[in-house]
Amino acid sequence: MTASGFLEEIGDVGRDAKRGGYSRHAFDSPEQDLRAWFGERALGLGLDVDTDHNGNIWAWWGPPGPDAVVTGSHLDSVPGGGAFDGPLGVVSALAAVERLRDKGSRPGKPLAVVVFAEEEGGRFGVPCLGSRLLTGTIDADRARGLRDADGVTFAEAAGNSGFNPALIGPDPERLGLIGKFLELHVEQGRGLIDLGAPVAVGSTVIAHGRWRFSFEGQGNHAGATLIDDRADPMLPAAATVTAVRRLARAVPDARATVGRLVPTPGGTNVIASTVDLWLDARVPGTVTPALVEDIKQAAEAAAKEEGCRVTVTRESYSDDVVFDDALRRDLADRLGTPPELPTGAGHDAAILAGFVPAGMLYVRNPTGISHSPEEFAEPGDVEAGATALTDVLGHLAR
Amino acid sequence: MTASGFLEEIGDVGRDAKRGGYSRHAFDSPEQDLRAWFGERALGLGLDVDTDHNGNIWAWWGPPGPDAVVTGSHLDSVPGGGAFDGPLGVVSALAAVERLRDKGSRPGKPLAVVVFAEEEGGRFGVPCLGSRLLTGTIDADRARGLRDADGVTFAEAAGNSGFNPALIGPDPERLGLIGKFLELHVEQGRGLIDLGAPVAVGSTVIAHGRWRFSFEGQGNHAGATLIDDRADPMLPAAATVTAVRRLARAVPDARATVGRLVPTPGGTNVIASTVDLWLDARVPGTVTPALVEDIKQAAEAAAKEEGCRVTVTRESYSDDVVFDDALRRDLADRLGTPPELPTGAGHDAAILAGFVPAGMLYVRNPTGISHSPEEFAEPGDVEAGATALTDVLGHLAR
Repeated sequence: MTASGFLEEIGDVGRDAKRGGYSRHAFDSPEQDLRAWFGERALGLGLDVDTDHNGNIWAWWGPPGPDAVVTGSHLDSVPGGGAFDGPLGVVSALAAVERLRDKGSRPGKPLAVVVFAEEEGGRFGVPCLGSRLLTGTIDADRARGLRDADGVTFAEAAGNSGFNPALIGPDPERLGLIGKFLELHVEQGRGLIDLGAPVAVGSTVIAHGRWRFSFEGQGNHAGATLIDDRADPMLPAAATVTAVRRLARAVPDARATVGRLVPTPGGTNVIASTVDLWLDARVPGTVTPALVEDIKQAAEAAAKEEGCRVTVTRESYSDDVVFDDALRRDLADRLGTPPELPTGAGHDAAILAGFVPAGMLYVRNPTGISHSPEEFAEPGDVEAGATALTDVLGHLAR
Repeated sequence: MTASGFLEEIGDVGRDAKRGGYSRHAFDSPEQDLRAWFGERALGLGLDVDTDHNGNIWAWWGPPGPDAVVTGSHLDSVPGGGAFDGPLGVVSALAAVERLRDKGSRPGKPLAVVVFAEEEGGRFGVPCLGSRLLTGTIDADRARGLRDADGVTFAEAAGNSGFNPALIGPDPERLGLIGKFLELHVEQGRGLIDLGAPVAVGSTVIAHGRWRFSFEGQGNHAGATLIDDRADPMLPAAATVTAVRRLARAVPDARATVGRLVPTPGGTNVIASTVDLWLDARVPGTVTPALVEDIKQAAEAAAKEEGCRVTVTRESYSDDVVFDDALRRDLADRLGTPPELPTGAGHDAAILAGFVPAGMLYVRNPTGISHSPEEFAEPGDVEAGATALTDVLGHLAR
């Protein structure tokens, strides 16, 4: 089946009627359906499927062993996300395996397709949770205690899905099997539009992280409380949103976003008692902590002015990643010197890059828009991506 | 039973573990429990209970008829609200009826205790929905189409609770029975603290309304989208929160609040595609529309600057209300000239005041805080309120 054909099969899973696009989050019902679907398709291709202790699914061609060539991506989405971010890398991997098999290829090295859990952090807040756990980049106890918006912990959700929460954590044995890791992904910007090319090789992922700002004030009646008697946390929260933009603009190439903001209790006629907002900040190099410090100071000043308090918690942070030089050269040689692209988007490949040679392929997105229903890839470009992946995997696993 | 005793009986209904306090919204499970509880207690006092087509519950002492003395309040709450806002007026009415009955009083006029539906607008957005429908102050079709946060309409929710949605609307016959309406309510400010008195008579309710501001931008990836390429609706939403405070401060005695703000899709690593926020604005006199117009202009300018659009919808509006002069004099004479208090809080009594002689009694709140778990009334003050209500009802219905 073509990559587009696989993608069509899951086109109805996890549609979000309210937000548009898809909402598929770790261990929720659509994500479980996608897990089952992936397992069936991988078995149908003659692969051996097993799921590790951290919820990542592995489909092996040939017995698992060292120096394996591993490819894959993720099946979860942001809330109201697009059809390609994640699934494109998984379906292209399945299509590549099928083509190699149909051509009669017999890889000399073990080859595996992996589906990483909770890449978006859409449910438990920490992105790339599956690959962070595999590599020990996040403390297992901290991961177990992460809570979703309803207060359910990652350990509870994993337990309810048949995993043993006690076994969550670093998996050096499995990590040690990976010889090279390659992730194909839809591009999340306009790079390939401008370059007029369908496929690129990833060069770098810029430093990025997430911080939670919790503003505490005094909940009260919106009509009976005079302005001068208020300690309304919505005010410093709004000032912080404005400061994020102003301070980010002053740092070259910085991106900083508040996409999630939750007032509690959240009634129209109620002055909020607390407002939580999440800052997503990314800056090439190591500037991010400095930018975040400036934002934190602005938030503290605004909170003080309103008689509120603010607490800032770092939820995740990753330094700049440069993908493996030798693998990049290999990919470039094999694919006829395609363009190289840096990205501001985080990926499991960037987590793995700290431990094994890792690389990425990007497929053109004609809207330049991602994390949105408008995200897209033309069937011809999807095909070009799958062809490139097939070629490269056959070469690497020869 | 004392008013405090009745209040204790419902102390466990609808507690909100997440926000603290209580969340009891029109036709949800706790609110249904409260309806059932009220019906039982009213029947226990020998009252005849019926529910009108708009979801308001009436408990009659003597056959329903013209020139009735009606008292009551509501049992729903804001999200995470206090124990007293609404229920205090209902339990005080029940306690008053019991005392009058125990004293052997036989009212010369029909006397009714009413529980109004959706007073807070916590589920469907329009406050005092039950009394607005009764009086025809809101169009029935508009009310039927009001949606909760899950997209359920008021008509659907009412239908699922056994009401006929086709019958929702003005009820002039029932309204015509009310000779006088009196609502007892916990005070939602510091007036009675400063005056050192347990009970006050209501003088005025200031003009108030709710407006929804919907900002539309372009949803996108928080890491891969450069600042200059963004149309992020969170920015003009934040600017509007700031403008609300700035513009309200310039108008004497104005109160203006953004307590509810919802970005969609609401992911940490996603630039929002839309942000909705709700403005609650209240100004003595008729200044509110002018203030809202200024805020709207600030919102439009901020939206334009970010390449976003904003739509502003008025969800409710009520002019200044002055409670009935004769009834106020009557209450003051009867209660030994208690203080008179204006309020910025809306009430069903203020809706009814446009149609029948209506008045209010306030009971001291030692925290001065309302719409919050901190809302309180000392048992002695609750008793003073119930005693005052008993005395006044006995007098009015003599």
